[in-house]
Amino acid sequence: MKKSLLGIFSAIVTPFDKDGQLDITALKTNFSRWQTTPLAGYLVLGSTGEVVHLDETEKIEVLTAARASISNDKTMIVGTGLHSTAATIAFTKLAAECGADYALVVSPHYFKSSMTALALSAYYQAVADTSPIPVLLYSVPQFTGISLAPDLIGKLSEHPNIVGIKDSSGDMKALTQTISLVKDSFMVLTGSAPILYPALSIGAQGAILAVANFVPELCSQIFQAVIDKNNAKARELQLKLLVLSEQIASRYGVGGIKYVMDLLGYKGGTVRSPLLMPDNNAQTAIKYLLQNTNI
Amino acid sequence: MKKSLLGIFSAIVTPFDKDGQLDITALKTNFSRWQTTPLAGYLVLGSTGEVVHLDETEKIEVLTAARASISNDKTMIVGTGLHSTAATIAFTKLAAECGADYALVVSPHYFKSSMTALALSAYYQAVADTSPIPVLLYSVPQFTGISLAPDLIGKLSEHPNIVGIKDSSGDMKALTQTISLVKDSFMVLTGSAPILYPALSIGAQGAILAVANFVPELCSQIFQAVIDKNNAKARELQLKLLVLSEQIASRYGVGGIKYVMDLLGYKGGTVRSPLLMPDNNAQTAIKYLLQNTNI
Amino acid sequence: MKKSLLGIFSAIVTPFDKDGQLDITALKTNFSRWQTTPLAGYLVLGSTGEVVHLDETEKIEVLTAARASISNDKTMIVGTGLHSTAATIAFTKLAAECGADYALVVSPHYFKSSMTALALSAYYQAVADTSPIPVLLYSVPQFTGISLAPDLIGKLSEHPNIVGIKDSSGDMKALTQTISLVKDSFMVLTGSAPILYPALSIGAQGAILAVANFVPELCSQIFQAVIDKNNAKARELQLKLLVLSEQIASRYGVGGIKYVMDLLGYKGGTVRSPLLMPDNNAQTAIKYLLQNTNI
Amino acid sequence: MKKSLLGIFSAIVTPFDKDGQLDITALKTNFSRWQTTPLAGYLVLGSTGEVVHLDETEKIEVLTAARASISNDKTMIVGTGLHSTAATIAFTKLAAECGADYALVVSPHYFKSSMTALALSAYYQAVADTSPIPVLLYSVPQFTGISLAPDLIGKLSEHPNIVGIKDSSGDMKALTQTISLVKDSFMVLTGSAPILYPALSIGAQGAILAVANFVPELCSQIFQAVIDKNNAKARELQLKLLVLSEQIASRYGVGGIKYVMDLLGYKGGTVRSPLLMPDNNAQTAIKYLLQNTNI
Repeated sequence: MKKSLLGIFSAIVTPFDKDGQLDITALKTNFSRWQTTPLAGYLVLGSTGEVVHLDETEKIEVLTAARASISNDKTMIVGTGLHSTAATIAFTKLAAECGADYALVVSPHYFKSSMTALALSAYYQAVADTSPIPVLLYSVPQFTGISLAPDLIGKLSEHPNIVGIKDSSGDMKALTQTISLVKDSFMVLTGSAPILYPALSIGAQGAILAVANFVPELCSQIFQAVIDKNNAKARELQLKLLVLSEQIASRYGVGGIKYVMDLLGYKGGTVRSPLLMPDNNAQTAIKYLLQNTNI
Repeated sequence: MKKSLLGIFSAIVTPFDKDGQLDITALKTNFSRWQTTPLAGYLVLGSTGEVVHLDETEKIEVLTAARASISNDKTMIVGTGLHSTAATIAFTKLAAECGADYALVVSPHYFKSSMTALALSAYYQAVADTSPIPVLLYSVPQFTGISLAPDLIGKLSEHPNIVGIKDSSGDMKALTQTISLVKDSFMVLTGSAPILYPALSIGAQGAILAVANFVPELCSQIFQAVIDKNNAKARELQLKLLVLSEQIASRYGVGGIKYVMDLLGYKGGTVRSPLLMPDNNAQTAIKYLLQNTNI
Repeated sequence: MKKSLLGIFSAIVTPFDKDGQLDITALKTNFSRWQTTPLAGYLVLGSTGEVVHLDETEKIEVLTAARASISNDKTMIVGTGLHSTAATIAFTKLAAECGADYALVVSPHYFKSSMTALALSAYYQAVADTSPIPVLLYSVPQFTGISLAPDLIGKLSEHPNIVGIKDSSGDMKALTQTISLVKDSFMVLTGSAPILYPALSIGAQGAILAVANFVPELCSQIFQAVIDKNNAKARELQLKLLVLSEQIASRYGVGGIKYVMDLLGYKGGTVRSPLLMPDNNAQTAIKYLLQNTNI
Repeated sequence: MKKSLLGIFSAIVTPFDKDGQLDITALKTNFSRWQTTPLAGYLVLGSTGEVVHLDETEKIEVLTAARASISNDKTMIVGTGLHSTAATIAFTKLAAECGADYALVVSPHYFKSSMTALALSAYYQAVADTSPIPVLLYSVPQFTGISLAPDLIGKLSEHPNIVGIKDSSGDMKALTQTISLVKDSFMVLTGSAPILYPALSIGAQGAILAVANFVPELCSQIFQAVIDKNNAKARELQLKLLVLSEQIASRYGVGGIKYVMDLLGYKGGTVRSPLLMPDNNAQTAIKYLLQNTNI
C-alpha cells in the first residue's frame, strides 16, 4: 500500500555525540517521542540530517535505525541524491532495500551552469526509471543554487515514478505555478516553514520541515487548521512558526535546531564541522526566545 | 473622513496616443468603466502609470482628471516619490492640493548602497512629517533594487502619518514578517498579483495591482472569496490570475497591459519609449491566451 | 575639433552648502585646482554629481559654470540620460547648447525587465540620431541594475554618433569582451577605480572616476605608468588607489568623497538628502586612513 | 624541495570511456603530451576533473596514474576538499601518500548561510594543521555559491601551512584586494582564464585553468609575455583566450572541453551524467570556432 504524503513531515536531524560520532541511541529516543505526535512521517538523510557529512556505512546505520523506529502508519522518505546519476541510482536502490517508502532526490548542482532543463530532465528520468520506490523531486536553492522551474516540474510530473516534490525555495509564486502545472495526483510539499499556511492555502498537500524536529505539534496544528477552514487560527499559528523558524533554523542552521532540541527534551547532540553549534550569545538569545514564546 | 485602504486598488496606466501625447480622454473613459467595478480605489502616477515618463505639468493634468473621475466612495492614492527628499516633499504637497487621499512614496534607490536603514528611515520620516496627507511606503525591488526590510517597516509604522505599505516584492516570508511587526492599525497591501490570495490569507488588508487595470472583477472576486472564507474558490481564481499576471504583465510589462486593455474595451493606448508595445508574436500569444481564459 | 577621450576624467561632485543649496562658488574653486592637474577632462552631471538631485534650472547653472571653468584643452562630458527617450533627447540638446563636448547617456533602467537588447538598442539609436554631440554609452549596474551586454555595445559601436562607453561595472571579463567586439575607433573607458590598471592593460583608453575628485594626480600617474610600460609602478599605485576607492568612495558614497575633498582642500560641501554625510565614526576612520596613506 | 607555484597549471579532465568508465590509458596519453608543453604543473581531481563524480577507489587510481606521469620538475596539486572537515582531512592525508605536492581545498559550501568567516576559518585551520602537505585555498563561487572574502584570505595566509589560493571568481577587484592583504610569500593564482593577463598584471603569480587542457601553449605564452613586459602581445593573446574560454569552457562546460580535446588530438572522452556532451549544433559551433581561430 502506498504511504501517504499528506500532512507534516519532519526533516530529521542526525544526532552526533560530543566526539562527532553517530549517536543511534539518541536518534531512537527522538523517534520514540516523535511517534507520539501527529507527524505524518519523516525525511531521513535530508539536508538537515547532514547527509553530506555521513559516509555510506553511517547512512545505512541511520536508515536501519529509522526503519525500526517508524511505525507502519507513518511514512519514511529518504534523501538519496548524490552528484552523479550512477551514484544516485545505486544509493536509491540501497535505500529501498533499507525500507524507504520514497526517495527524495535533490537536484544535481555542482556544475550549476550545466544544469539545464535538458540535463536535469535526463537525470531525474534516469533515476526514476530505475528506482524501486517512487521518487520525489527536491528543489532547495538556498543549499544548491538551483531552482527547479515550474514547467520542468510539470513535465517531470508525467513520469509514473515521479510522484511529488519538496520545494524549499520559499518562492510562493513558483510554488503556485508548480501547483497549476503538475498532474492532479502529483504531491506538492513545501519545505519552507515561513510560508507553510500560505502554501497549504494555495493547494500544497503537505510539508517537510526542519522545525518539525522540535515543534511537530505546532506544524501539525497549522495543517489541521487549514483542513478545518479555521483561517484565523492558521494565521495566528503561522506568525508564531515564522518567528521560531527565522530566529532558530534560519539564523543558526542545523546547530540551532539541535541546540533547541536539547532544550526541549529531544536529543539534538552536536553538528559535524564545519558546522558550528550556537555560541554563548546565540544560546542566550535562543533561550530568551523560547521563554517568551508559548510553544 | 479617512478613505478606506481595504480591498483591491488598480495601479492605473496613463494612456498615450499614437504620438506619445497624454490622452486624458482615454483616461476618463477608463475611469467611467472602472467606477462600475468593485474596485476600492486607484493608484494614480504609480510605476505602471509610467510616472517616470511624465513631466510635472503632465502629472498635474493626470491628477486633475483622475480626481474629477473618482467618486467620493473610492480612494485616490498618488505616487509621489522622487529622488531627493526635498523634491518628494514638494510633489507630495502638490498631490495633496490636487486631491490625493494618500501619498505612495517609493523608496529612494539610485544610490543603492547608500540606502541604509538609517538613510531610508530619515527620508520617510522627513516626508511623513511634512505631508498633508497620510503616507504609504512602497517597496518594489524589481524596479528599484531596494527591498524595505520588515523591521524597518515595523519601526516606521510607529509614525502617526505613515499608515501603510504597498509591498510589491512578492516575497511571502517578508510580507508575513512585516504583518507580524507593524502596529495594528498599519495597512499592509500587496502589489504582487501572483500571491494575492496567500497574502490576504496571512493578513494583508488589500492589494494595489497592475492587472486590476483589465481584470478588476477577478481581483475583487478573490478578495471577496477570502472574506467569505471560500478557500476553494479563492484558490481556483488565484490560479487563473497567476497565469494572466505572468503571461501578460510580467512578460510584456506596461505595453502588454495596455495592449490587453485595448482588446478588452479599455483605452490602453501606447507606452512611451524606451518601453515597447508587444510585437506581432507577442500580440498573437496574448490573444490566444485571452481566448483560452474565461475572464 | 574632436576633444580627446584618452586619459583620466573626474566624475565631479556638485557642491551644496549647509542648507543644501547649489554652491557654484565652491564648484569654481574646485575647477581652478583640478585645472592644474593632468586630468584630461570632466564628467559633469554624472551619478557622483548627484544629477538625480538637481532640477533643470540647477543643471543649467552647473553646466554654465563648468563650461566657463574648463579650458579648451580639456574635455567636458555631460550626463544627459533621463527616463524617457524624449526627455533624454531634449536634455542632450540643451547640454550641447551649454557647450558639452560629449553626452554620457545612462541606460534607462526603471522598468528593468523591459530593458531588452531591442529596447536599449532603439533607445540609444534614437538618442544618437538626434544628438548634436557624440554620445557615450553608460553602464553602471550598481546604480541601475542594468548591465549593457558586450555584444549590444559592439552593435551600437557601429553607429557613427555613438563613440564610446563608460563601463562602471568593474566586470573585467565583460570589459575585455567589449574591447574585443567594438570597432577600432570606439573608446572604452572604465568607471571603476579598483580595476583601473588592469583595464588600461587590456586596452581601455581611459577612465571616468569619482575618486579623481580628490586624487586626480594618483589616477593620472597610473595612466602614465601604463603608457611608460612601468608595470611595477602601475601595480604599486593601483594597490594604493584600491584602498582609497574602497574605504572612501565605496564605503561612504558621495558623502565620503565630499568629506575627503574638504579635508584635502577642495570644496566638497554636503550631499542632498536622502544621502548622508559620514557620521563621526566614519569621519575618524577616513582621517586615520588619510594619515596612513601617502597621497 | 618545495615545488613551484609560478606559471600556468592545467586543471585536468578525468577521461571516461563510452560506458562512463575511468580511462586511465587516455589520461596517460594526455600527460605524455602535456609534459612537452611549458605547463608548470597540474591540478588533479579538481572541479574540471569531475572529482564529484568519482568514488574513492577511482580517485586513487587517477592520483597514482598522474603521479607516475608527472615529471619531477612539474608540480602536482590535488583537489582534496570534501563536505565535512574530517573527511577532508582524511582524504588530504591520502592524497599526500599518493604523492601530491599541494592540496587544493575547496571551501565547504552545502550549508551556505552557515559558512561564516568563523566557520570557514576554523575549517581551513583544522585542515592545514593536520595536512602533511601545504594547503591552497580554493574559492569558486560559480560552483559553490561561496566567495572567500579577501580579509579572510589575508588572515588565513598567516598560517604556515596555508601557502596560496586559487581564486576562480573572476572578480578583479577582490583579487587585487587579496593580493594587497596576504603576506608576501603567499601565492595568488587565478582560476579565471578571461582575466589571466589582468590578473598577472596586478600581481598574481600564476593560474590554474581548465582551458589549459587544450591550449596549454597559449596560456603559457601569455604568462611569458607578462614576464617579458610585452604588453601588446599579452593583450592580443588574451583576447584570443577570452573567446576560447567563453565559447567553449563557459558555454559548454566540461563536456565542451572534452570534445575540443578530442578534436585537437588529446583524449577527452566523455563526461559522466548528469553532465552532457555538446549536442550536434554545439559541435558544429565549436568546430567553426576552431577553424576560425589560430591556435
